[in-house]
Formats: sequence, C-alpha cells, structure tokens
Amino acid sequence: MTRQTITHEDGAIYEFHPTLEPIATVESGAKLTIETRDSLDGAVQSESDRMDSVPEEVNAATGPIAVEGAKPGDVLCVEIESVRVAEPHGRVVTIDGFGLLDGHEGIDSPRTRMTPIEGEETDEPYLTFEGCEIPVEPVIGTIGVAPKSDPYTTLVPHDHGGNLDTTDITGGNTVYFPVFQEGAMLAMGDSKAAMADGEMCGTGAEIATDIDVTVEVIEDPAIELERPLIRTDDAWKTVASAETLEKACQIANRDLIELLSAEHSFDFTDAYMFSSLVGGLEISQVVDPLVTVRNAVPKAYLSSPF
Amino acid sequence: MTRQTITHEDGAIYEFHPTLEPIATVESGAKLTIETRDSLDGAVQSESDRMDSVPEEVNAATGPIAVEGAKPGDVLCVEIESVRVAEPHGRVVTIDGFGLLDGHEGIDSPRTRMTPIEGEETDEPYLTFEGCEIPVEPVIGTIGVAPKSDPYTTLVPHDHGGNLDTTDITGGNTVYFPVFQEGAMLAMGDSKAAMADGEMCGTGAEIATDIDVTVEVIEDPAIELERPLIRTDDAWKTVASAETLEKACQIANRDLIELLSAEHSFDFTDAYMFSSLVGGLEISQVVDPLVTVRNAVPKAYLSSPF
Repeated sequence: MTRQTITHEDGAIYEFHPTLEPIATVESGAKLTIETRDSLDGAVQSESDRMDSVPEEVNAATGPIAVEGAKPGDVLCVEIESVRVAEPHGRVVTIDGFGLLDGHEGIDSPRTRMTPIEGEETDEPYLTFEGCEIPVEPVIGTIGVAPKSDPYTTLVPHDHGGNLDTTDITGGNTVYFPVFQEGAMLAMGDSKAAMADGEMCGTGAEIATDIDVTVEVIEDPAIELERPLIRTDDAWKTVASAETLEKACQIANRDLIELLSAEHSFDFTDAYMFSSLVGGLEISQVVDPLVTVRNAVPKAYLSSPF
Repeated sequence: MTRQTITHEDGAIYEFHPTLEPIATVESGAKLTIETRDSLDGAVQSESDRMDSVPEEVNAATGPIAVEGAKPGDVLCVEIESVRVAEPHGRVVTIDGFGLLDGHEGIDSPRTRMTPIEGEETDEPYLTFEGCEIPVEPVIGTIGVAPKSDPYTTLVPHDHGGNLDTTDITGGNTVYFPVFQEGAMLAMGDSKAAMADGEMCGTGAEIATDIDVTVEVIEDPAIELERPLIRTDDAWKTVASAETLEKACQIANRDLIELLSAEHSFDFTDAYMFSSLVGGLEISQVVDPLVTVRNAVPKAYLSSPF
C-alpha cells in the first residue's frame, strides 16, 4: 500500500472536539506519514525568542484524519513505525506559570535554550544542550482522537489522548485509543527530540517531526477501552490523566486490574495484589493542566486484550 | 576482611529515633550480612492468617548499627552486594485502610496470598502467585539512619530513609544517606521477594532476607546530602518522600538540579531544563503515610557528587 503524506498545511487542530471535520479520510490499514510542526508553531527560532506565557493556541495537532469504518465502541490502533526529527534544532523553554518548580526562586523565566542536532549523518544523532550531548529519541507529545462529549484543547490530556507527553509514545510502539466518534478523528503533533519522564520544566526539546504510522480499526473489541493503552516491546501500559498524580495512579492501576482480571483467573483483589508485584506505575508528565501516569505490566503476563 | 553477621535476634527497631543505642559497632569499610525478618514479623504463615489492620509495630529493621567515625554532615555509603531470600515463601496482603485503591468496591480485605518460591536450585528462582511465575528480584523496603530531630516509625519514609519501598534498593546498587547522628545508626528490613514500582496494594511479596552490604563513611563530602541518593549501574537517583506525589516530585527534582548544577556550568534554570530532557521522575511507592519518588539521571551526565 502506498504511504500517504498528510502535512500540517493540510490542516491542524488546537482542540480535540467531539465534532471535527476531517482533513483526510483513509482506509483502515492505511500507512501514513504525518508531518507535524513544533509545539510552539515555529515562534521560537533563537534564544532571544522567549515565551511570556503559554500561547492560547499551542501543540498544533496535524489532522484530524478520519479512518473509514471506525465507530463508537471500536478501538483505533496506531502503530508508530518511526518518528523522525524534521528540523536541525529543538528548543526548551521555561514559561511563567508553567512547570513543576514554577515559582521557585531559582527559576529564570521566560528562558529559551536552543538544542542543535548533530551527527545526523550517523546512526546516533544527538542534540546538544549547553555542551552536553543527548541522544535523539523522538517522542510524540500530543496524540488523540475526538472525545466523547467535552472538548479539550491540545494542552490537555484526557481519555481521548491529547497532550499525554509520554516517552513511550515513540517509534516501535503502538497506541490504542477508544473510538468515541465516527471516523475516530486522529490528530498528532507536539513532538520532542528528547524528553524526560515528567517533562519537569514544561517542555522537552520541542521539534517538528515526520511520523510514520499505520492506522487500523479494531471492530467489536473484546474489552471496552476507556482510555489510551500502549504496547511496547516488552510491556502493556495503561495511561491515565487526572487532577493529581494520586488520582491518575488510581485510574491507571484500576484499568490494569481490569485487563489482568480478564486474562487470568484473578478476581479484582488478586489482580490488584498481582499488580503490586510486577511492572509498576510510571510518570509521564507532571506539568500539564492534568497530569499523566501509566501502569506497566510485562507482556509475559498479558496478551492482547482485543 | 571477615564478614560480620548481624541478626534480627541481635536487635531490631520499629522507630528511627534521633537517639538510638547500637546493637553493634563496626568500622568504616566493614562487610556485613544483615538478617531481616519479614515486615509482618512472621505473623502471616498461611492464607488464613490475615491482617485486620496495619500492626502498631511493622517493618522491623535489624539494627541499629553504629559505624565508627560517622558524624553529622558525613555521608554513609551502603553498598548492597546482594539481597537473598531466607524463607521458602513470601506473602502479599491487603489491609483495610491501606493501599492505593483502599475503599474501592472491588477490594476484598483483609486477604492474604502466599507466594511460594520455586527453582531455588537454579539461577532463576521465581515466586508463584495464583499460577503465575514471577522472577525473584529482592528489594529492601525499609533502610535508614537515625534522623535529625523528629522520630519516624518504620512505616514512614523521610529524609533519613525509612520505609522507602524503592525497587532500586537492591543487590548491585549503592545507597547514600546523610549522617545526622554520631555513628549514623543504620538499620534495615521489610524486604520483598518482588515488588512493583508503586507497591499499590500496600505490600510486595514480603519475605525474610539475608543482606550483604559494605558500609563506608564519606567524611567531609563535597556536597551537603539532605536525603537518600541511589547509584545504580547506569544512573544516579535522588529520592524524596512527601505528603503528595507532586511535592515529592518537586523535592526530588530540586535535589537533582543541585547535583547537576554542581557538576556542570548550569545555573539552576539550565539544570532544570536539562532535567526535563534526560532520565526522569520515577515512582517508588504510593501507599505509605508519605509517598516516595525518585529523579533519575544517567551516569553519563553526573559523576559521583562526593
């Protein structure tokens, strides 16, 4: 199948809304290259470009892309083949009112650091930050589908996905989304050339990317998926966003317990106890309007729930 | 140097108190084998033994052990050579009023599941939980030194260590503690045969262990260590406990920023931005009276801070 390219110029959203008009419609099984701009929409090109506040429109998500046949209750499987940086530098910024340590006396904001990428001719490109070399490991920051009822700006993560800022959403992994609306309406952007779990200062190395994915509709899945789910090389990870890390942990753990119970002879309590022994809770980001965590379990203990 | 054995029968504490009487005094550089009982002090030997509540005395910590020459302002380096299970089964329990999902309608508590250990004659022993095999990867749950001023029961983690329930506190890794009192007064116990990051149900597979460590005093360290710090094969990890995960993340991140600033030409803000690109925040446990997180950075970016 030919790989179809969908660019930021074709269309992008700043809000995941229940009602969205697609910029493209593709078949289930389609292979796509999706071009995304950086989260700050090109506004920061040097260290003298600083962000006084979080822009009203941020994290442009290329899309939405309708997938034929996707209907509420289905699952949209997004296999991420690769995420490639598409400009020679990323940028890290501090913004007043944003970030884990916002208000701490030591923080200078707004500040911008450019992170030039070098070694692109090799297999191991790296970005540089004030003399330190950091491997390029691109991550998709914002990815999601049309939500069930309430709209969410692309700054917010929730059950539809959105601004999940999760390092596991990267080349080689697969993300599953619940389909809430006809066509699912996939959109993505806000990539980083590198990001730490937590994204403490509020950004990773924000960068434009080209993303290769295969999208597929799973009709009548064996489980009712309520939130994004990630498959990595060796684990399944539930993903939950909430007002506090504690609440997000509870939701991610509960979702994992449901998956474990469906697979094993566990009742809820046994699955809860089992989840306390293997894999575990992981932090995605602690800075967005809702925070995001995941609960991992090795694949040895969980086959595909669909 | 001969390896000295210190057993639970020699003495154990249920409170890390600023004033402690040592059960043994050892030289800096001493190699020790420390025998620990399980966190429930042997009270649970079958699935009909259930915990109606968290015992007043829990997480017995073998010790305290005075290390000669350790004085306030020094650092106690505890190199963990190995943690070996010392009984044929662990146990996982739910307890009313305890655990991430406490109060959730699906939870049956108190419940006990025994986790027999098999394959001990091989290099890959495993525990079994309701038919599932889980690799034995022992973790020390409670480890710490005499605190600065307030006492903490062995159920509570804080700057002195205590009930950190951190999967990285295991064989092959090294934990550094601030010395607050003469002799440091090291104690440890509450091991698990396996534990997930988060320890969601409130326990791992609780088990008695024999722990080989080498203890060493670092006099006049180059930094003022305020909280435990872990060195793994490939990373340094700050460790912080607080009332909420958000607060613990802030402390762990701030501590890491201080370390990065001391090593690099970073000011506080640059170190903050750098911490947002590599390594990241990790969850230790979400169930103790204070919760614990860590902030990891690859060793490539941080040499020993001492």
